Amino acid sequence: MNPYSIGVDLGGTNLRAAAIDIEGNLLERVAVQVDQHGGRNAIINNIVTAIHGVRGSVGADGLHGVGIGVPGFIDIDTGIVLKAANLPDLDGYSVRDAIQQMLGTPIILENDANAAALGEQWMGAGKGVKNLVLITLGTGIGGGVIIDGKILHGSVGMAGELGHMTVIPDGNPCGCGNYGCLEKHASATAIAAMGRLLHLGDNNLTSAGVYEMALAGDQRAVSVFQSMGRALGIGIANLINIFNFPLYLLSGGPLPAWDMFAPTMIAEIRRRSFVFEATNTRVERATLGADAGLFGAAYLPFQHQAARAEAVR
Amino acid sequence: MNPYSIGVDLGGTNLRAAAIDIEGNLLERVAVQVDQHGGRNAIINNIVTAIHGVRGSVGADGLHGVGIGVPGFIDIDTGIVLKAANLPDLDGYSVRDAIQQMLGTPIILENDANAAALGEQWMGAGKGVKNLVLITLGTGIGGGVIIDGKILHGSVGMAGELGHMTVIPDGNPCGCGNYGCLEKHASATAIAAMGRLLHLGDNNLTSAGVYEMALAGDQRAVSVFQSMGRALGIGIANLINIFNFPLYLLSGGPLPAWDMFAPTMIAEIRRRSFVFEATNTRVERATLGADAGLFGAAYLPFQHQAARAEAVR
Repeated sequence: MNPYSIGVDLGGTNLRAAAIDIEGNLLERVAVQVDQHGGRNAIINNIVTAIHGVRGSVGADGLHGVGIGVPGFIDIDTGIVLKAANLPDLDGYSVRDAIQQMLGTPIILENDANAAALGEQWMGAGKGVKNLVLITLGTGIGGGVIIDGKILHGSVGMAGELGHMTVIPDGNPCGCGNYGCLEKHASATAIAAMGRLLHLGDNNLTSAGVYEMALAGDQRAVSVFQSMGRALGIGIANLINIFNFPLYLLSGGPLPAWDMFAPTMIAEIRRRSFVFEATNTRVERATLGADAGLFGAAYLPFQHQAARAEAVR
Repeated sequence: MNPYSIGVDLGGTNLRAAAIDIEGNLLERVAVQVDQHGGRNAIINNIVTAIHGVRGSVGADGLHGVGIGVPGFIDIDTGIVLKAANLPDLDGYSVRDAIQQMLGTPIILENDANAAALGEQWMGAGKGVKNLVLITLGTGIGGGVIIDGKILHGSVGMAGELGHMTVIPDGNPCGCGNYGCLEKHASATAIAAMGRLLHLGDNNLTSAGVYEMALAGDQRAVSVFQSMGRALGIGIANLINIFNFPLYLLSGGPLPAWDMFAPTMIAEIRRRSFVFEATNTRVERATLGADAGLFGAAYLPFQHQAARAEAVR
């Protein structure tokens, strides 16, 4: 059997774990509910149970390590979760050491959007590309920057906060204190909010609902995706001018609406980035969907070992 | 004598060359006019003459190599100048090979703003800091991104086009085809243009002239620097959210006006980047002035050799 590792994608309501071998074959997967009411110990137990489950079916032989994607800020060196908005019980807790002690296996913690970017680079739309940016469109907008095959962390693991790039200086207010953050103009939540502003539906209106109306020919719904595409285009054009990378990927819930927002987005990028115009730059859909974070988390132990082997050589 | 290398800073009207040893001591420097009317051969001869001059006084012993900062886009791998707006005779020309053949010494070509960023990292305000961004304020705005001590090039050497980040989506038009590029709202040229819009002077008005009026208490002139500070703040906040680096540096002609624009800039960054608020991030003045490019260009051969030694080890 090929060496394998276990990737965990921890969310606010459920968590998934998968065994993936070094060639990217998904061997086994489980999903469990996260017990939000039992405090940090309950969450840690949920994670350990999922890992045990996967390891039990695949076998402990050949297990390389475990990577865990967490929706929040991680101090990579210490393995402490600094802040996880949807899992506040973990704030300030040494999640890595807690799990490592219970399992006796090396654990690597990572931000979930960073893990997704690495997953796309390893086995998704970025396969074979060493430098790319992933933007994840969801309730908010997250991001991951891969430079020379590795995640860009920055000083304290807060790099890649692409949802908080200012794209409209006097735009919608954001909980972060800013106005015009990308995520307030291009996330799934923003699509629904713009739809409500146009009286396309009540509080139950979703981004998918706005998309259905746009598909049915409602021009107000179409204009929502044009506004979203423009905001994305401004942000991505800035990234292209900064990085000159060959590939920028989008993932998340609004991706099926690609044909509705991408033409405006690409036109905006074309106008705002001569680097895009002058180079062979691709802006495309990510391909691993919700599994990107699992693949990226599973890849972390392999990458870590390769880096250590490199250092020893 | 310590090993030394020669750094060249090529401009549109003059070029400077300096011998700098591996400890950062500047041993010798020359400046010569660039013969713009003699075509590419004349420019190459100007460069070679300057290098000869410096090498002649310091001595050929201990010369490690030559780095040349060029104001334009460089194909780093081939040493070809892709586009140099102020030296159009060099477009498409293999400047590296031409000079290498005449001198018999290894030559490394680099974009001038990238070289300046590396220079500040080696011997300037970024000494000891492995990750930083430099923004150069001049006729336009250039930039360099240093990641783990090395220049970020991107796919074809066009990374760091920070002057063309969109900061005001419907702002001033730019020659690149975009609207609201940072350099159209925060360069020395933009300061002078805003001053003229306020009737502070005629076509001879300079950014220094606007600064003098602001110092003298002219509130319209003060507002120019507030506008410039706001634009810079938007751009730098984006960079902080993307990179989470510890240090962002500014250099160039308008730097003496720091006290006039920096308060607005920092307030804008504070509002637009929770990463800035949450981390120990510095936004400061570069310290090497016009010599940053010389230092960075001279450092390139040392860095290249260290990388090769690392690879061989």
